[in-house]
Amino acid sequence: MNETQPVTRGELRYEGKAKRVYATPDPEQYIVEYKDDATAFNGVKKAQIAGKGAINNAITVAIYPRLEAAGIPTHFIRQLSEREQLVRAVSIVPVEVIVRNVAAGSFSKRLGIEEGTPLPRPVVEYCYKSDALSDPLINTDTALSLGWATEPQLIKIRELALKVRGFLTPFFEQRGVRLIDFKLEFGTLASGEVVLADEISPDTCRFWDAATNEKLDKDRFRRDLGGVEDAYSEMLRRITA
Amino acid sequence: MNETQPVTRGELRYEGKAKRVYATPDPEQYIVEYKDDATAFNGVKKAQIAGKGAINNAITVAIYPRLEAAGIPTHFIRQLSEREQLVRAVSIVPVEVIVRNVAAGSFSKRLGIEEGTPLPRPVVEYCYKSDALSDPLINTDTALSLGWATEPQLIKIRELALKVRGFLTPFFEQRGVRLIDFKLEFGTLASGEVVLADEISPDTCRFWDAATNEKLDKDRFRRDLGGVEDAYSEMLRRITA
Repeated sequence: MNETQPVTRGELRYEGKAKRVYATPDPEQYIVEYKDDATAFNGVKKAQIAGKGAINNAITVAIYPRLEAAGIPTHFIRQLSEREQLVRAVSIVPVEVIVRNVAAGSFSKRLGIEEGTPLPRPVVEYCYKSDALSDPLINTDTALSLGWATEPQLIKIRELALKVRGFLTPFFEQRGVRLIDFKLEFGTLASGEVVLADEISPDTCRFWDAATNEKLDKDRFRRDLGGVEDAYSEMLRRITA
Repeated sequence: MNETQPVTRGELRYEGKAKRVYATPDPEQYIVEYKDDATAFNGVKKAQIAGKGAINNAITVAIYPRLEAAGIPTHFIRQLSEREQLVRAVSIVPVEVIVRNVAAGSFSKRLGIEEGTPLPRPVVEYCYKSDALSDPLINTDTALSLGWATEPQLIKIRELALKVRGFLTPFFEQRGVRLIDFKLEFGTLASGEVVLADEISPDTCRFWDAATNEKLDKDRFRRDLGGVEDAYSEMLRRITA
């Protein structure tokens, strides 16, 4: 297939809170379309953030090839349009992974640790991907016992999550951004290989300006801090500068 | 020290929801006193269950020497009175361990798994021991990062928890009781050795009658099912029969 050839959208396979996934004529490829929809507190708070879909697509498109180059297999193939990417068809593992460098958000609240407290060791948390249950916190025993992932998959997922952290933390630091925490999703190819899927964007990471600790991420929307679009644009600018 | 010699109670070292811990003249020994106080939902619901302290002491006294015999080091030394035990002085690791054979309680609610569903593999969960935070669910990464336990301690704790399960599950089965789940606490001796501490009782385990699935544990109190004292007495009867 030609690198610039348009790809025909097939049927809608999945619609999430921020993206739609479509089939293509090639069963091993999907199209991912980024929406402007923003939700928080598991869908309780909803809005549109103008241009968010295009920005998050552009940020993810800028980061994924760098992760591949760093030895992290991903689902990414190429950008198709302002809001679309061509990706490898994966089956999403229903275990979301959160990697934390600094205490914030639900972690701070649950454990009574002040937001902004650096963690002496990174913390990897796992949640069950379920809108109906609000993505509850689980651990690997639970994922194994309930058949959400296999032991080799969980070992690989943890290894890749820490590798992503190892790449992204200095990557953002060089751009004047503290990577506080981030959420990853993984999928399996038809071959069984585990690859990084989903996006890496201000929707899925906490980014704080290194000099001012100003939030440059979805917390601006969650907490009604204003300047949401500007923060997303600023992150895209720093990443692609 | 003579096996039957009385031990002088020193100062109150700790008062929990169901027990008090006192110093003794020997700095390596504590007295644990079992109260009749019952609390649920982290102290929101409170009552007295007549005779509970004596029953839970008797049940724990019956079980701990058997665990020792099965190769599990514990804090238990000997019973002192109806409500008191002499134990080795430990520093409690602030990580509570829940071992689950069957989905129930908070696990069922959080994950939408019907109560009573057998788990194909046991699930070990960890909570941060904190009344103020309602014992939040954590994982081993969090415990390590926040300094609540060391890696060797967590490895030992998991190993011992699964060993306790391996002993208790058939032990109760032989007494017509399904061991649904249970909570353990561990402590460290002055030497650093990790030992099982706390109680094993209807306050800390879910026990269901093997024939009828009737609850023989604190859920009778939590859920206002009535017959609380009878259930605790019945468990003591089956264990010591």
